[in-house]
Amino acid sequence: MFGKVLVANRGEIAVRIIRSLRELGIQSVAIYSTADRESLHVQLADQAVCVGGARPQDSYLNMNNILAAAVGTGAEAIHPGFGFLSENAEFAEMCEDLGIKFIGPKPSTIDQMGNKEHAREQMIKGQVPVIPGSDGYVKTADQALEIAEKIGYPVLLKATSGGGGKGIRRIDTADQLARSFAEAQSEARVSFNDDRMYLEKIMENVKHIEVQVFRDDFGNAVYFPERDCSLQRNKQKVIEESPCALITASERAELGAIALRAIETIDYRNTGTLEFLMDQAHHFYFMEMNTRIQVEHTVTEMVTGIDLVKAQVMVASGEPLPFSQTDIQLNGHAIECRINAEDPRRDFMPSTGEISYLYLPVGNLGMRIDTDLYPGSKVTPYYDSMIAKVIAQGKTRNETIEKLKRLINEMVILGVTTNQKFHLAILNDPVFLTGQLTTNYLETEFLPRWKGAGQSEVISE
Amino acid sequence: MFGKVLVANRGEIAVRIIRSLRELGIQSVAIYSTADRESLHVQLADQAVCVGGARPQDSYLNMNNILAAAVGTGAEAIHPGFGFLSENAEFAEMCEDLGIKFIGPKPSTIDQMGNKEHAREQMIKGQVPVIPGSDGYVKTADQALEIAEKIGYPVLLKATSGGGGKGIRRIDTADQLARSFAEAQSEARVSFNDDRMYLEKIMENVKHIEVQVFRDDFGNAVYFPERDCSLQRNKQKVIEESPCALITASERAELGAIALRAIETIDYRNTGTLEFLMDQAHHFYFMEMNTRIQVEHTVTEMVTGIDLVKAQVMVASGEPLPFSQTDIQLNGHAIECRINAEDPRRDFMPSTGEISYLYLPVGNLGMRIDTDLYPGSKVTPYYDSMIAKVIAQGKTRNETIEKLKRLINEMVILGVTTNQKFHLAILNDPVFLTGQLTTNYLETEFLPRWKGAGQSEVISE
Repeated sequence: MFGKVLVANRGEIAVRIIRSLRELGIQSVAIYSTADRESLHVQLADQAVCVGGARPQDSYLNMNNILAAAVGTGAEAIHPGFGFLSENAEFAEMCEDLGIKFIGPKPSTIDQMGNKEHAREQMIKGQVPVIPGSDGYVKTADQALEIAEKIGYPVLLKATSGGGGKGIRRIDTADQLARSFAEAQSEARVSFNDDRMYLEKIMENVKHIEVQVFRDDFGNAVYFPERDCSLQRNKQKVIEESPCALITASERAELGAIALRAIETIDYRNTGTLEFLMDQAHHFYFMEMNTRIQVEHTVTEMVTGIDLVKAQVMVASGEPLPFSQTDIQLNGHAIECRINAEDPRRDFMPSTGEISYLYLPVGNLGMRIDTDLYPGSKVTPYYDSMIAKVIAQGKTRNETIEKLKRLINEMVILGVTTNQKFHLAILNDPVFLTGQLTTNYLETEFLPRWKGAGQSEVISE
Repeated sequence: MFGKVLVANRGEIAVRIIRSLRELGIQSVAIYSTADRESLHVQLADQAVCVGGARPQDSYLNMNNILAAAVGTGAEAIHPGFGFLSENAEFAEMCEDLGIKFIGPKPSTIDQMGNKEHAREQMIKGQVPVIPGSDGYVKTADQALEIAEKIGYPVLLKATSGGGGKGIRRIDTADQLARSFAEAQSEARVSFNDDRMYLEKIMENVKHIEVQVFRDDFGNAVYFPERDCSLQRNKQKVIEESPCALITASERAELGAIALRAIETIDYRNTGTLEFLMDQAHHFYFMEMNTRIQVEHTVTEMVTGIDLVKAQVMVASGEPLPFSQTDIQLNGHAIECRINAEDPRRDFMPSTGEISYLYLPVGNLGMRIDTDLYPGSKVTPYYDSMIAKVIAQGKTRNETIEKLKRLINEMVILGVTTNQKFHLAILNDPVFLTGQLTTNYLETEFLPRWKGAGQSEVISE
């Protein structure tokens, strides 16, 4: 086991990792930017090293400074958390070159899964269902029409070398495809000097369902009960839960088998999450893989009683997985609300300031608040606006929702504006209570209604 | 189910009960003394009624005012918490007379178990092992010698009508008993006008082991895994845990069977706890029964995932127990530290004041802090000095201890002196780590050593 680990992150996830390291008897090294001098993660760690200025590229993305801090403090491993350098294959490789263990998968795996086409190919190889598409390049309009007919409209017609919204068209009918193909191809030739095109089905009315997996150096592998992260705004998850209210035990086992096939195929190490779309017929389609711990790992921890960060550290140190598939039992239901410093009534504009008063409700069973806030701490404009995660676990989904409502009602954060009332409105929403919502629900249905209504009309709690 | 429940208590337990009521969708009524106007339980409840002055007898023990508050607010039931009126049969009876459900056992059961001789008789009837003694009155020295020989020295020679330390002698040998009997008897005659004497074995090198039980109106009954509450000072529990580190699964089942026999015998209702002494041979001897929820119910909740207060309310409302024996599974280990506003370095003198700064570590898995503290709240001299309960749960006892050390280290309470460092010293104590300690350990071994040593020598964490 490692004697000292550097945590290459900030905020609540750095605090959360440092706490697990402490419980494992491992010394922790925090890194911080000049804006984070007084942050909780700096105060809780055994050592702390300033790695640069406030801007992420100067500090938390500054690979050389971070590695220098690791070498200088004698850290044997680096936990990257999420965001920042957590999915940077180059950084993982630099760690390995220095003899410092990167707590995550092999650099080549990070690289492979970071490339969407590569990832898709690997998943097809592992017989993992993927979003239907052309499975390679489409050369003619006739060929495109044939494939689109098979996978069904609407589809996306994409230029291989496109990106960032360029070289991509939504196609709703065969007529439209017939009319557009040649034009799109010639546009791609002009724009990217590459006229290779491919097709992908547009998935509508789907849920975002993800499966966290774990695999050690000895080939032991497990999957965790799925998470439903369909409640999103701007592609950001807002509320996550486990299990999904609509998925049956046999579907869970089926999804687990798919996930295990996937990580076996790519010889995966440590933890990661396979993200799927689930259609109305409960068919799953692989979207992408996150090769790191995720924000929402907490709901899985609460519903299984397993500390995933401790397991990450143990597996990275060469120990076998500290649990088997049969140890992973669903205990009721868990839901997380991401508390952001932002103003939902002003288009979710980020809010900054000093925390002048803080009351975090901490008692009773089945609750958890992961945060780096303390009275006097500062929320600066440099980083993500997520300042706390409120997680509840209960015997049933309804009991869990009641707990969350109580927690978010009791919690007092003064000094910044937060989205607590927005969360309460969602937790009281009849559609949310059914669990039936899809990935577009929050933006296309809930938000317009919520914006239209006065806050007092929506929030009954 | 009740629509509204009055909580006849204060402090963290009132807060804890109000939170469970909220999650059940039940309106809560707080009561408070003039000293507790700004207390958290008053702020969290749906309604609050002042029931009298700061002194307990004027408010939290003021039965008429409390019942008037219940009637006035239309509360259908009263939860008494622990302490105050929780084991007052007269109060329970007054509730029933008013058609208000007392959340606890029948008044006659409270009365019966409150009388130690009565309780002992009932337990013998239920074939529950009790502390060896004369099982009735001893009339002559010869009879006393015969019984003492059988149960073994040392024994207590007690006058039936004695109490409060009077009419009670420790006897170590047969000689001493032969010499003392007549004298003790005549003393009792003079002092109490009653010369009936009885004998009880003095149990030395024992653990305090207790079993919480639950029984509904339909005869459904369960027991919970035992708690080890051997760490005591002044007969007050300091640290409690579940399960006991030394008890095996078959001993647990045996103890559970004894406990179920006991509550069947007395037709018990709702929850209660049977307290036993366990000797070095792991034999159990009934001491007394608490006919209410206890301070340390939290460790049982953490290790089983069951909300005992919710179950109390459900069973009191006439519903069947919401769980069966097979639902009660041990999930690792849980330990609670009672945080008191007191100064262990000044003979545990109570400390009072206003909370000027508060940091409660709330993140990560398997932790819970039950407290009514908030920044600006006041700790007054009128009530118990316990201000918070820090509870951790982990896969193993060692992991749980590491969590507790982290939590107590991170927790910052300014404005009063607390026993946090005293707890840290215990959590780092080699004997505590073995789990082998008996009820006299803290006072006769640990404390003298701790008082002798400088604080810095003892506290390594």
